[in-house]
Parts: sequence; C-alpha cells; structure tokens
Amino acid sequence: MPERDLQYLSDLAAQLRVDSVRSSAAAKSGHPTSSMSAADLMAVLFTCHLHYDFARPENPANDHLIFSKGHASPLLYSLYKAAGAITDEELLSFRKQGSPLEGHPTPRLPWVDVATGSLGQGLPVGVGIALAARLERLPYRVWVLCGDGELAEGSIWEAAEHAGDAGLANLTLIVDVNRLGQRGPTRHGWDTGAYARRFGAFGWHTIEIDGHDPGQIDFALSDARNTRRRPTVILAKTRKGEGVLEVENREGAHGKALKDPVTAIGELGGPRDLTVDVHRPEPGAEPYRFGAGALSLPEYAVGERVATRTAYGEALAAVGAARGDVVALDGEVADSTKTEEFATAFPERFFEMYIAEQQLVAAAIGLQVRGWIPYAATFAAFLTRAHDFIRMAAVSRASIRLVGSHAGVSIGEDGPSQMGLEDLAMMRAVHGSTVLYPCDANQAAALTAAMAGLDGVSYLRTTRGETPVIYPPGEHFSVGGSRVLRQSPADRATVVTAGVTVHEALAAADELAAQGVAIGVIDLYSVKPVDAAALAEAATTTGNLITVEDHRPEGGLGDAVLDAVSELGPRVVKLAVRDLPGSATPGQQLANARIDRHAIAEAVKRLL
Amino acid sequence: MPERDLQYLSDLAAQLRVDSVRSSAAAKSGHPTSSMSAADLMAVLFTCHLHYDFARPENPANDHLIFSKGHASPLLYSLYKAAGAITDEELLSFRKQGSPLEGHPTPRLPWVDVATGSLGQGLPVGVGIALAARLERLPYRVWVLCGDGELAEGSIWEAAEHAGDAGLANLTLIVDVNRLGQRGPTRHGWDTGAYARRFGAFGWHTIEIDGHDPGQIDFALSDARNTRRRPTVILAKTRKGEGVLEVENREGAHGKALKDPVTAIGELGGPRDLTVDVHRPEPGAEPYRFGAGALSLPEYAVGERVATRTAYGEALAAVGAARGDVVALDGEVADSTKTEEFATAFPERFFEMYIAEQQLVAAAIGLQVRGWIPYAATFAAFLTRAHDFIRMAAVSRASIRLVGSHAGVSIGEDGPSQMGLEDLAMMRAVHGSTVLYPCDANQAAALTAAMAGLDGVSYLRTTRGETPVIYPPGEHFSVGGSRVLRQSPADRATVVTAGVTVHEALAAADELAAQGVAIGVIDLYSVKPVDAAALAEAATTTGNLITVEDHRPEGGLGDAVLDAVSELGPRVVKLAVRDLPGSATPGQQLANARIDRHAIAEAVKRLL
Repeated sequence: MPERDLQYLSDLAAQLRVDSVRSSAAAKSGHPTSSMSAADLMAVLFTCHLHYDFARPENPANDHLIFSKGHASPLLYSLYKAAGAITDEELLSFRKQGSPLEGHPTPRLPWVDVATGSLGQGLPVGVGIALAARLERLPYRVWVLCGDGELAEGSIWEAAEHAGDAGLANLTLIVDVNRLGQRGPTRHGWDTGAYARRFGAFGWHTIEIDGHDPGQIDFALSDARNTRRRPTVILAKTRKGEGVLEVENREGAHGKALKDPVTAIGELGGPRDLTVDVHRPEPGAEPYRFGAGALSLPEYAVGERVATRTAYGEALAAVGAARGDVVALDGEVADSTKTEEFATAFPERFFEMYIAEQQLVAAAIGLQVRGWIPYAATFAAFLTRAHDFIRMAAVSRASIRLVGSHAGVSIGEDGPSQMGLEDLAMMRAVHGSTVLYPCDANQAAALTAAMAGLDGVSYLRTTRGETPVIYPPGEHFSVGGSRVLRQSPADRATVVTAGVTVHEALAAADELAAQGVAIGVIDLYSVKPVDAAALAEAATTTGNLITVEDHRPEGGLGDAVLDAVSELGPRVVKLAVRDLPGSATPGQQLANARIDRHAIAEAVKRLL
Repeated sequence: MPERDLQYLSDLAAQLRVDSVRSSAAAKSGHPTSSMSAADLMAVLFTCHLHYDFARPENPANDHLIFSKGHASPLLYSLYKAAGAITDEELLSFRKQGSPLEGHPTPRLPWVDVATGSLGQGLPVGVGIALAARLERLPYRVWVLCGDGELAEGSIWEAAEHAGDAGLANLTLIVDVNRLGQRGPTRHGWDTGAYARRFGAFGWHTIEIDGHDPGQIDFALSDARNTRRRPTVILAKTRKGEGVLEVENREGAHGKALKDPVTAIGELGGPRDLTVDVHRPEPGAEPYRFGAGALSLPEYAVGERVATRTAYGEALAAVGAARGDVVALDGEVADSTKTEEFATAFPERFFEMYIAEQQLVAAAIGLQVRGWIPYAATFAAFLTRAHDFIRMAAVSRASIRLVGSHAGVSIGEDGPSQMGLEDLAMMRAVHGSTVLYPCDANQAAALTAAMAGLDGVSYLRTTRGETPVIYPPGEHFSVGGSRVLRQSPADRATVVTAGVTVHEALAAADELAAQGVAIGVIDLYSVKPVDAAALAEAATTTGNLITVEDHRPEGGLGDAVLDAVSELGPRVVKLAVRDLPGSATPGQQLANARIDRHAIAEAVKRLL
C-alpha cells in the first residue's frame, strides 16, 4: 500500500478516535476507549473493502456491517459522519433524548440492521444474513465487529459452528482483541492464538494481526474476501483507548467519557474533517425470490382429532407454496414441531439449526433483515434458551415468527423439563409482541397463515396431543379477536381459556348445563393483543370470570384477562399450573394441575 | 483386563439394554435407543471407576454423575437397579403417575443432583460441582454423560471454556457419539475428530474410542482419572439402539418404545439379574468450609442517596463474613452489579464467570448441589440469557440467588438493550420463585441477607442510580411482606409500587396532598410471594389501586397485584413501560415511560 494511503488511513483512524472522544464527552457517557481500539480496523474496512451505498441503505447489493460490540457506538457514528451519512451536529447529539444515535445502535438509524448491546448476538445474526445471501444469490458480504470479551458467550460458538459447517465464505468476523473487558482483563488477554485455535477447530479461516497496522488490516480484509468455502475471523491485537495516555491499555477506563477530552483530542492530533468515499456496490442486483401461488390451507373436518402442531406444519407448507419469501427454521425437532412438512416441500428454504436455539432465533432475525418471512420452531420450553435474542429482536424492530410446540402439562409423560409452562409469560412481556394459542387445527392453520403478515415478534403456541376440530375450515380468526363458544342470558359465569383447555371448558359447560348451571365459554386464542371488548362484555354481564390455562399462573392468559378488565372490577378466578408436575398421562396431568373439566366445574360452583 | 471381567461388563451392558427396553415397553414411551448406545460406557463406569455410596447419597465424598442427555433415563434407572438402589418393580413404574422415575431424571430420586432433559445443561452444571470440589478440598470426581447432538448448544462451549481455563481435572465428559439426533443425523455424524479438535482447542484432554469396547472404555476412564490440570472428554463412537436389529443405527427410532420388545430382549440374550458393586468412597471425608462470624450489615442514614446495587454489594460482603458457605458469581460486570465488594473481601469464594450467563447460573446450580449458598449477578436484562437454566433450576429444586442490576428505564442513556424490562415477568413465572425489588439501601441490604435463607430460586432486582434512603438501618423486611408508606382515612386511592418508582409515588402523594387529594402508598418490595392481605385491605378501603413499575406491563408487579385482588374486584390502573425507550437521562426516561411522579398524580386524578 502506498505511503500516502497509509497516511490517510492513519489520519482517518485518528479522526474516528477524536470523534469518539468528542461525542462521548458531549454525552458525558459512552464507550470511547472500546471505540478507539477498533478505529484502525474500521478505517481500513470503510476505505478499502466495504461496499455500501449510504444514500440507499435499502440497496439489496449493500454489504452488511454489524457492530456486535454495540457499546462501540461512538466509533460507528464517527464512521457514519466520515462517510457523509450524518453531520457533526448529529454526531454530538449522541445519547441525548430524541437522538437516533442511541447509547447502543438500533435500526432507528437506516444503516443499522439490528440492535446490539447484548453481547454475543451480532455474529449469530450475521450468520442469518449470510445464509440469506445464498438464497438470494447475491455477492454481498457480512462484516461483524466483535469484542474479545463477548467470545465467552455460547451463542458465539453456536454461530461459529453453523458458519463453519455451512462454509459461509461471505461472512467475516473481525475481533477487536483489546485485552480488557469491563471489569478487568479478559480470560485470554492478547493471546489471539487461543481464539485462532478455537475458530480453526470450528472450520474457520483464521488470521492474526496487529489491529493498529493499516497494512496488515488491509491484507487481512483482502484475504477474507478472497477466501472460499470458509468464513474468516480476523483476530486483531489492539489496545483499548489507543492513542490517549489517560486511558490507553488501562483498567478502569471502560464505559465512561474521558476525564480530559481536550488533552486527548490534542494527543490525537486535533479534530479533522476527512471524508471517506465508501465503495458503492455494482448497480442492478436483485435478490432471487422463489415462485409463489395461491394460498390453499389444509382443511380439517369438524370432529376429527388433529394436533395443532400438525396443523401448523401443514399450514406452513401451504403458506410456503403461496409465498416465495417464506422460510422456516427448526431446532432439530422438526419431526415433533412438524416443521418437517415445510422442510420436505421446500428444502432450499428450510434451515436445520440443530440444537442451538439462540442461533435458531438469531438466524431468523438475520433472514428478516433481508426481507424474508421466517418461521422458527422448537419446543415451547426451549425457546426460553433464546429469550435474550427474542427480547433484542423487539429492540431491532424485527419481524419474526416463533412457534413453540409441546406446550403445557398436557404433553404427558415426558415431565416438566419438556413442558412449556413459562412461554406465554416470556412472549407477552416482549415489546410489541403477538401471542396466539389455537385450540383446534383449522384455527391453528388460519393463525399460521395470518402470522406471515404480522410485524414484530409473533408467537404461536401449539399442543402435542390431538384435539377435536371445533371450527369449520375456512373461518377467519383475526389477531386480537376471540370466539364466544357458549353464551346465554342465563350465564352466571364465563370461562375464558385457549388451546387445549378450551375442550375442557366446553366439557365443563356441558356438565354444568346438565346440572342446570349455565356458563359462557370464550376461546381467547389471541392472548396478545387481547380482545378487551369481548372480555369487558363478559365481565359486565356475568360479573364472574374464570380463566384456565395450561401454563404457570404468572404472566399468561389469566394475567392478560385480569389486565384487560382491571378497571371494570369483575371477580376473576384463575386456574393454572401451580405445582411442579412429574410424569403422568396427559389426562392425569390436566387433572393433577386442576385445569381439567372437573376442576373447572368445581371452580364455577365455588365461585357462585 | 481379564477375559472374565470383559464378559461381565458385556453381560451387564446387555442387562442395562434389556432393562431399558423393558421399562420403556412398560411405559409405552421413553428413549430406549438413546439408552442402548451408552450402555457399555456406563457399565464400565459403574463397575470400575465410579465411587458412590448408594446407601448414603449425602456422603460428601461421593462422585457426581450427571446424565446431561436426560432422555437416556431408562439407562440411568437400569443402572440404579443394577446397583441395588431400586427394585425391578420400581424400574417398571417408569413414567407412571406418582413414580419418582420420571421421563427425565429429577432430584425426586436421591441420587440425582439436578434435573436434566433440556440439553446442554449437564456439563455447565458439572463445572459448578467441579469448582465446588476445589473449594471443599475433596477428591470426588464429576462424570457427565452427554449426547453428540447437544454439543451444538452454546452452553456446552461456555462450559468447555470455563473448565478448560480453570483446568478442572476432576471433570470428565463422556460423549455418546451415536450419530443420530431426534430428527436425523447430527451435524458431524461419527466424526469424533471434529469434536476432539474443538475440545482440544478449548484446552481439554481428548480421547476417541469405540464406545462399545469395554477395554477401550476402561482405558479411557482410567486415563481421565489420571489426567492432571485438564478436564477430559471421552468421545465414544457408538450405535444408537445397539444390539437390536429393529432399531440399531436406524433413523426414525428416537424417543419411542420398541415395537417388538420381546424379540429385542431375546436378541440381547434375555433378562439378567446381575448386580454391580459400585466402589464406595473412602470414609471420613469432610468438605472444607470457610470461617464465619456475626452478621453486621451495612447501615445507611435516612436521606442519604445510595444505589440499591451498592447496598447489595456491601451487604453481600457482610453476609460472606457472617457465613462461610456463601459464594458469589458474576458475569464480568462485578464493578457494575457491585459483586466486586464480595470479590475483594473473599477472592477464594468469588467466581468470575466472564460474559457467559448460562454458565454463570449453571455454576450456581452446581455449587448449591454441594451445599454452598450461591449469589449470581449480572445486569437484569442479561439474565434472560440464562432463562432456560433458571427454569430448570426450579425443576431441580435448586436454591440459587440471582441478582439483576440496571433494572428498568431508569438506567438512562444506555438504552433498551441494557434495560431489564422483562425480568420480573421471567422470574415470577419460575415455579416456587421469590422476587424481591427493594427501593432503598437498607431494604436492599436486609433482603440480600434474607435471601441466604431462602429455598428455591430467588431474585433481587437492583437499580443503577442512587435513591434516597427512606428506611432506618436495622428494619426487618419479611419475604412476602410490604410496607405502607402513606395511609390515611381520607385516602381515595392507593399507589402500589416497588423499587425506583416508590420515590416517584411518594412525591406524587406529596403533590396531591398539597392539592387536597389524599392517597395511600404501598411499597410492595416482595413481588412474589405478594402481600395479599395488605393489598386486599387497600383494595377494599379505597377501592382504587394504581400500580407503578419500571417494567413492561405484562407479568410484573401490576399483574402480581391484579392476581392478588382478582376475587375482590377493585378498580386497578396499571402504569408501566409501554413504549420502546431510546437514550435519555434517567429522569426523562421515567417521564417518557409515564411512570414518574407527574404521571402517577395524573393517573390518580383520572381515576377519581
């Protein structure tokens, strides 16, 4: 590389450091030192290797850059300024109310694909984007910047395994090995060889460099671009706070503005106003999309016994036939979740993520970055493994569809480790989420199809065992709606439930009717958003609500009902799974948990 | 090994297979094939290497054996039978209602340390037990049996990293590489070298063997016992369903009883009645415990401004001085959570788990298996990373103390990725959990101390910013209690809140009092169990409750209150964080979320 270019890169890196110091100083907080260590790496990437059209972030041929170390946001924003995407004034709005330049990057900025800040997530999401590139047959690259500390996260190794095995040569991980975590030294310090051995064992091409030498960085990035059949990790030895004596390579300098920014900026050669002309990708690229047809959902005859998980699988295959942008992922249980129906029909659009639920959800997030409509399924219980990714998906404004099978005690003999009993609580608390829990096959099929059009994080809860079909094929079930299954002017209470216990409630209603007690039954298949109007009517007409759910008493359907009617003041009794189940048959489990027909009938009598 | 011994081991393994087939056949479900692949491995372990006193499972010198592949429970129970711990009749109660022989092992059986069944958890928990052995200065060993499929879980690699780095030579992982997962072949099939390269890179001693050859197994287990300074992984190539043509090495034979158990048992040589005399450990061993003294909690003057996280840290150090069995763990943020106070005072009892929250919680679970009292802390938001481990801790009847700092929007500028806004929902839905959320430093200190005596999973939610001390030092705060902070006969509504918003509620009460409106204020520091009596009194006297929480509206304090008063029918208005925050100062965040003093006062006026 000519001396003149090296000087430019060095000057640009200094500017990025200065701007990181300035923006953090203006905010009086932030992570300037974690930004300064990676400044040279990013200066070379932006100048020589990234292909990105900042004027058209929606350009499908753009590369993707993810700051997995989201706390280095001052560096990212300084890069945006150097690339002409934001002004210096905007840069200095960092961390202030109303500014899109948040403490950690979010897609409020059009150049940010996903929110980061919870460490170890950028790489798994990058794997999803890199997988999308294959589907789309486009040559864009995915660049992920990680810190060294976050390599301790298991999710990094789920991603390393998936990327290595899939041979994602379009994925490059750049690790800013600055030796210092938040509290003190990282486990491996500057031993880049320790990381290289690990990534090498997972099938990656590894390069160890001095992360402050532009020539070495340029060589490594070129090498990564030229590597075939394998992802590349660049392990760059750097110094945290590089260039400023107050903080350089010092403990206790994490996550705070510099004490003396004026001196620091002086040490760094003062403010500069360099611009970087980032290469734009070749024009005219269009992502490949699969063919599509008319939607023809499976139909189940009323009275037939079909598991809702089966209906999900068959409906997903139908949705896949109707929409070429639908993809499916599964956590090595597709024969149980029934995603297998889709996998068989559309093998190119199915992703086996093996037993790695964090990567399962992260890949879905990455795929939706590129406009795909992902459905990701595993047992409801095991989605808890990906809770942090689901939480962050909401911050990313990501639209993903999650499907949890084997919900509740009704799975039977397998016992509590396999029972999704906390999933409704987890999914309801996700910002902007939709939570659906069908009770029969036609409803499950209809809701599976409806999810394709939903924004945000949506969740479908399915049941292992067969349940009778009660709705005719072709009925519409709106998100946010409910169905009144039993209602009469004589109703003295209303049972509100969803899923497997709908059938228990109907049986209880029949049993009570035979004894002269009329009750209403509402199928609250949309747990969030909840049909507040229908619940309010029930609350005000009968004044007595009984909620029933195959779920813990906290945070699920019962709480959703209580919340909806809280300002009206009806009496509400909640039936839910209060004890720790063991092994038993499905019927015994429902009885033991006191959410079966007899328990419901008893609860009604007790209430009246 | 003499021919006679080899014949015995072979016969014992056949018996274990037969009993796995028999018990699964009796249950009409279960995982016989996943049991059969590991039968030789376990026959040799039990006969030659395990040290365990089945008559005294509480013997502190016993080895620990964890079936991380918990679905191989038929094999585990067949081993218990061979060891004389259970009868054949008990074996055949497998998966039946009331039987402690559940579909997946749980500590209802005295020889089971922790529940498994959610894959990838046994090894990280084993790391915790192996760490305990060092503290206790005891020579017991930890044996973990994993499947090959579960090695895709990131938690396995968090554990591999921790064990390799810590040089846990007392930990041996035995991987039953039977090539077949639930749905189909695993990623690496029988390529034990692929796993060996990975574990080797993480610093483990690796041995690759034929998992059906007793001589090779015995050699490998001896090698593991003799290896110093490194954990050992034995990668054993096996065949799923080994010994029975119906299922041997076949896809589609996962997780179901055999179709033809009679033929299978015949192929395996018929039932046997061998017993295995497991070596008992040397008598007289006692675990080392650290010295202890009197509890002297930190005291904070009323009016002083102290963060509850600071009080947690200082109180934990005091608890550590008072109790030699208290240990602390942190996820590389001890300077933020303030676990650092303990780490400085008791470095031997502090575990830096780095940025690996699953291993953080798993190590706590492992330590409590050995009677230690663990406190594990990280940001509240990042505890979601360990949700599945927390869920399973409840199934394990484990007593662990979790501490989540930086709760809520009140952290300020860092933005939503760092805000614990779903933690109350997650922790409340855990079976048997305790959820505490103090509002001042003396309360935080008292609750930190109280947690040491709690059974089950308990959770303390702390706040980043300083809050005024309102309770004098030395006050007692019972778990399940609450405090009435404002009350008068003229009260027209009661605000129920906890943590940082207690101070907002008090300010709102003052503001309203100045306008002639009296309201009550309850500090509901115990979110679970909740003080139903106090809430019922407020609900019936004022009839109007306003809940306020720095948390999502779903599953948190508001829902806890609604649940407690649901049968009384008061009007309840819930203030919570409904939008997606950005960056802003703590005060702006509370105002934006409409949970500050002004929002509370307005809500009261609107309600009245």
